[in-house]
Amino acid sequence: MHNQNLLKEQLKNKINQKTKPLGALGELENIALQIGLIQNTLSPNLFNPVIVVFAGDHAVAQSGVSAYPSEVTYQMVLNFVRGGAGINVFTKQNNIHLEVVDAGVMGDFEENLPIIHAKIRKGTRDYRYEKAISLEEYQLATQKSHEIVQNFHKKGTNIIGFGEMGIGNTASASLIMHHLCNIPLAECVGAGTGLDKKGIEKKLEILQQVTDFHKITTKNPLDIALAFGGYEIVMMAEAMKKAKELNMVIMIDGFIATSALLLAYSQNNDILENCIFCHTSHESGHQKILDFLGVKAILSLNMRLGEGTGTALAYPIIQSAVNFLNEMASFEDAGVSKELNV
Amino acid sequence: MHNQNLLKEQLKNKINQKTKPLGALGELENIALQIGLIQNTLSPNLFNPVIVVFAGDHAVAQSGVSAYPSEVTYQMVLNFVRGGAGINVFTKQNNIHLEVVDAGVMGDFEENLPIIHAKIRKGTRDYRYEKAISLEEYQLATQKSHEIVQNFHKKGTNIIGFGEMGIGNTASASLIMHHLCNIPLAECVGAGTGLDKKGIEKKLEILQQVTDFHKITTKNPLDIALAFGGYEIVMMAEAMKKAKELNMVIMIDGFIATSALLLAYSQNNDILENCIFCHTSHESGHQKILDFLGVKAILSLNMRLGEGTGTALAYPIIQSAVNFLNEMASFEDAGVSKELNV
Repeated sequence: MHNQNLLKEQLKNKINQKTKPLGALGELENIALQIGLIQNTLSPNLFNPVIVVFAGDHAVAQSGVSAYPSEVTYQMVLNFVRGGAGINVFTKQNNIHLEVVDAGVMGDFEENLPIIHAKIRKGTRDYRYEKAISLEEYQLATQKSHEIVQNFHKKGTNIIGFGEMGIGNTASASLIMHHLCNIPLAECVGAGTGLDKKGIEKKLEILQQVTDFHKITTKNPLDIALAFGGYEIVMMAEAMKKAKELNMVIMIDGFIATSALLLAYSQNNDILENCIFCHTSHESGHQKILDFLGVKAILSLNMRLGEGTGTALAYPIIQSAVNFLNEMASFEDAGVSKELNV
Repeated sequence: MHNQNLLKEQLKNKINQKTKPLGALGELENIALQIGLIQNTLSPNLFNPVIVVFAGDHAVAQSGVSAYPSEVTYQMVLNFVRGGAGINVFTKQNNIHLEVVDAGVMGDFEENLPIIHAKIRKGTRDYRYEKAISLEEYQLATQKSHEIVQNFHKKGTNIIGFGEMGIGNTASASLIMHHLCNIPLAECVGAGTGLDKKGIEKKLEILQQVTDFHKITTKNPLDIALAFGGYEIVMMAEAMKKAKELNMVIMIDGFIATSALLLAYSQNNDILENCIFCHTSHESGHQKILDFLGVKAILSLNMRLGEGTGTALAYPIIQSAVNFLNEMASFEDAGVSKELNV
């Protein structure tokens, strides 16, 4: 711990010696400091960046909590494979490896499709009547998601982002948020992919019934995950835990990814040391989770697409933070005068 | 005008057909629409991006309006040439051509230095006692900055950002803002490169005296530019006007660059059609100018470095906006179901 404090001082000193007014790079300085501390070095780097998109379906999606039908999850996975989705465009632009995981999509994919086949079940159970996920399924999801992260770590990846695709999954995220953040359910429920006011009211009514049915009074993240799912969310949560264990930089996307982080955070608050919050979603609950965690995101562009798109768009900014720390000249290097003693 | 409205509808339709919920890419959709309208096409592109950094000194800098001595302007130009400044790191990362212009630095540069030698004078006159810039100097600055932009346009550049380096230039920016936005001087004056509370009070006192001395009651941008300078600011303003004339996408940086835009905007409000506001500076007056113009910036990272760094960091986001418009699949292409009629 003493060494970490020393490194922190050295990093701050290195940042302050760069040819710029003190603090003039704002949040970039905080990001550079954070990554230096994670990697325990004055000269951090980002290697083999990866975004993993977990896809899964939700039985409840059929009941009116989403503006889109469940088939869209399956169709969007095919769109990812063909390169036509937002996340494809942004990862390609920014040289980020994209990996798609079938965590629990209702449809069957051909075996030779270039995705990771980790289907736990064809969609979660309907949490209006039973737990969404069984304990055995959770354990399988844990094992598979840990393997995925471990494999990227072996290839040298030291920064990883997580995204999701799952019609109906803002409903799960709202339930997780409500139970872990002590925030009234109405403040956790939003438009998702595009419900109107009446649709949001109906979604809230359903989720209130679900809350009453499960009656979870503890803050045990496992209980909450099993009750409300989905497979893509629990795989994200476990993947984040593994990425923390392997000391990677973890890029956090929007509302659903942050609800997955809440599950991991409830077990180990220290995970925040490794997390970079990439964007604030337009989905109404997201800002409140960020406030709960006491963090600020890099981008705020009124986006609400998911798929990890916020992490892909923020990645160049994270790279810029590392680059200025490594590449900018110091006052001494450049022969630039420092502040006047006024 | 009828054609422009038709194109707008077609662009909106193209954006809405992409495989994402309606509006889910937030500000990126607005940027894509704007660039499509500028380039009069459904498939815009960004070609040969350039950031031009204008450097100039201010006689008033010696009097206590800045935390750094004037020599720093000269030293930082040498730092730009050697590749050691923030703007070097970020333009290199994002494949943006960087051009540095001596608009009016006090020191002499060797002729073979890879900068554009357009020195109007070794620093402005002291606006505490006289006009900072003469009409002849303004005309020369206009001619030279127009040439610079014209030359990039000839090479195919269709997106250009402007940055600045000039110890003391937040003072000029504050005076321009005060006179063009009808905002009390105290709300226009901030810490610049890092004045403390006492320093800001002294800066405000000096700038109040300067305002009283010049007694400019019109909103004539030429009168205001001549009174308060500096050379780097008027060259930026004229370069922006030329970039608008050549129908380029114009990337607007922070407080000083936006004060230059105010000069151009006062003559032709339509320039906003071509401007993308790249970041909100931590310098206190900047948000108020953005509010005055009724615009919102892409990034808000508490930065206040100048040099065009905000434009270099925002460029990948602008590129992402163009890319999603060109590269994402439509619902029809991808065979993805559209919204339910709920």
